Amino acid sequence: MSERPSAEETRSTVVRMLTSGDDESLRAYAASLHPSDLADVLEHLEESDRVRLLSLLPAGPASDALAEMEDVEQPGALLAQLEPARIAELVSELADDDAADLIGELEPEDQARVLASVHDPVEIEELLHYPPETAGGIMTRELVAVSSELTAGAALASIRRQAAQVDEFFTIFVVDPDGRLRGVASLQGLVLSDPDRPITELVEEPPAVVPVHMDQEEVGRILSRYNLVSIGVLDPLGRLVGRVTFDDVIDVIEAETTEDILRFASVSEEEELRGSTRDAVRSRLPWLLINLLTAVMAAAVVYLFQGTIRQLVLLAVAMPIIAGMGGNAGTQALAVTVRRIALSDETTRELWSVVGKELLVGLINGLVLGLIGALAGVLLAGRPLFGLVVLLAMWGNLVVAGFAGAFIPIFLESVGVDPAVASSIFVTTFTDLCGFFLLLGLATVVLL
Amino acid sequence: MSERPSAEETRSTVVRMLTSGDDESLRAYAASLHPSDLADVLEHLEESDRVRLLSLLPAGPASDALAEMEDVEQPGALLAQLEPARIAELVSELADDDAADLIGELEPEDQARVLASVHDPVEIEELLHYPPETAGGIMTRELVAVSSELTAGAALASIRRQAAQVDEFFTIFVVDPDGRLRGVASLQGLVLSDPDRPITELVEEPPAVVPVHMDQEEVGRILSRYNLVSIGVLDPLGRLVGRVTFDDVIDVIEAETTEDILRFASVSEEEELRGSTRDAVRSRLPWLLINLLTAVMAAAVVYLFQGTIRQLVLLAVAMPIIAGMGGNAGTQALAVTVRRIALSDETTRELWSVVGKELLVGLINGLVLGLIGALAGVLLAGRPLFGLVVLLAMWGNLVVAGFAGAFIPIFLESVGVDPAVASSIFVTTFTDLCGFFLLLGLATVVLL
Repeated sequence: MSERPSAEETRSTVVRMLTSGDDESLRAYAASLHPSDLADVLEHLEESDRVRLLSLLPAGPASDALAEMEDVEQPGALLAQLEPARIAELVSELADDDAADLIGELEPEDQARVLASVHDPVEIEELLHYPPETAGGIMTRELVAVSSELTAGAALASIRRQAAQVDEFFTIFVVDPDGRLRGVASLQGLVLSDPDRPITELVEEPPAVVPVHMDQEEVGRILSRYNLVSIGVLDPLGRLVGRVTFDDVIDVIEAETTEDILRFASVSEEEELRGSTRDAVRSRLPWLLINLLTAVMAAAVVYLFQGTIRQLVLLAVAMPIIAGMGGNAGTQALAVTVRRIALSDETTRELWSVVGKELLVGLINGLVLGLIGALAGVLLAGRPLFGLVVLLAMWGNLVVAGFAGAFIPIFLESVGVDPAVASSIFVTTFTDLCGFFLLLGLATVVLL
Repeated sequence: MSERPSAEETRSTVVRMLTSGDDESLRAYAASLHPSDLADVLEHLEESDRVRLLSLLPAGPASDALAEMEDVEQPGALLAQLEPARIAELVSELADDDAADLIGELEPEDQARVLASVHDPVEIEELLHYPPETAGGIMTRELVAVSSELTAGAALASIRRQAAQVDEFFTIFVVDPDGRLRGVASLQGLVLSDPDRPITELVEEPPAVVPVHMDQEEVGRILSRYNLVSIGVLDPLGRLVGRVTFDDVIDVIEAETTEDILRFASVSEEEELRGSTRDAVRSRLPWLLINLLTAVMAAAVVYLFQGTIRQLVLLAVAMPIIAGMGGNAGTQALAVTVRRIALSDETTRELWSVVGKELLVGLINGLVLGLIGALAGVLLAGRPLFGLVVLLAMWGNLVVAGFAGAFIPIFLESVGVDPAVASSIFVTTFTDLCGFFLLLGLATVVLL
């Protein structure tokens, strides 16, 4: 097995060929690449070169690469820039789920135009009806299914015929005459079996199936839990309507991870990682405006205690320490809790115990940090009572942080809101507010 | 297909049977569960019940469930609590990679004891030599490989023999007499082929293979990029030593996601999501202590400007707003950049353009927020110059935030450090520091 050229080498080869204008060599070279590598090349080209390369390529490699493009904003929009006949050609080569994904991104009039030029639009139209982030939205209708009334031999013959149409089938679904899923069979089992044995004797119940409207994240969790290569998707009547494969699930897990991390940092999940400056502003500014509002709330506490600060300016020095430590401790508790909710299938009751644990963690960490802070405070202010105020404010704020970091996401989860929107903004506002209030309030009572 | 009982129903059935002491029913019921469901039950039991149930079960289901336990701290430690004969029995039933994972968690003396009681310890010992987070650490040696010198018919016969030992093989590897990987073949292709055809005519080059020392995250990226069910692992001489399957990769992606989110929030990646309070304190307190140090740096800036604050206490009110907005904008830029690095294979040069984009986003968002802040400042202080100071401080801090959020992780990546350790603590310290300095410094120059 020879060493493959790096992604960067491949990209520069294509750019060189694009520049030299040797379309024949370019066509041959690009068509020889793995679809994923070709997709990578396309993602790194300028818009105009991208359209040129896509127009140039044979339909097969071009559509395979389109299906593999993940990092670019709207490959559908790219498709829309091609000639109508070319679009129809590319879409016909795509698997139905990839075609539906691309067409789903188009403007309604473009959708109608593209669908009109496709050979068999019904399958794609049906897929377009499912919300994109459900089992129906990510499944493909292309699968291998055999009738439960066949023998092993007849089933094998049927599988051979179907296999020509389906890239990789992994699972053989067995359905009754009404299309209801009866179970799954393994190719291994069928090949090894007596050809006259009825297939019903070889059918096994799959460890799991999913309903067509199930959220894609839940589908991923189930497939991953049972280590399935593919999982059947059933309609409300129990009929097999499609399958979701492990590669779709890996894509879902990656997309959901990005979404969770972005939400955690108060970036709208719609922001493309490689999006434009304009998109970035549009996705982040609204959150910053909300944050401005919450920051004003925390600042209002400081405003109330201006008199206290004027008498003891050292409090303004302690403010960012108390608030910052609370914010970070709260973010720690939040991250652990959000991740625990995402990965486990614990009941809400079990999750509530997390709040108790986080309160305890806050009590311990707060005491340690508070004592250090108090010592520094005494040395700096020369007043033991100033140290006491710092100790109590830090301690109290860390307990509040643990509580907020665990309570907010669990509460949101229990009322059906994605806990990842309990982004650090809300937790840090809470800890800023409490930190200022504890520090300045205690100082007013104890020190003045 | 009937409705399955929920995870919670299954758990309470087991607990009921454990309490009633009807071991026969319990054994039969638990053995009938899917290994993943049984693992879930075990994870939710008390330590003593867990050992009791594991001792009670037939070896097959018990070891399958052990392999599926993910959420519990150290299933290896659980194993160590069982009788030596029982341990040997369970380990022998495990796939070699799962056995190596479990044994790898044991104390050295327990390791030797368990390995001594295993039927064929050599394979497991070899796996134990690979670092756990590499291709070698997550691969299994159990795979289906056929000699490149066989015909299609002879290869099929060989595959049938091997298939009895290997759960699911997905990929058929073709190796030359020295064990070097020559390519892969599909079962479909072999079944459909003329039995006398040499297998070399049916062999295809796999889209990718991975070296045994490759980091698991990179392995996951490659498998996911090429949508592979399993990928061959080669030693430095090009010999096939194992395979990594999609389910291992899904586990890796989930673990790395957890690690990234936790690191992002300054929690050590070792903290188990369901760990004890003690573990949580041990994992988080060191970060908070580092944070205390950095917070003191920011507070030192405030300390320097105490005189300014005394003359204009309203500055203490503006401080948390300027610093907080910068911190959140920096966290936004950080999240987008960290995720972009994690998902893409862009060159460092391409990544540097991100810094430019983030500076621009900071300029725009900073201007909008600065203008709003300035307006509020003028209304509150009654001094236009106070508004100007707020505008400039907010604007400048948002630009700094964009720069820090993008620069720090890209710099870390370029020097080979995981960018996720550029946790928000460092970015927020930076923005706190700059925010205070800009606000108080400008105020000293302009207002006093």
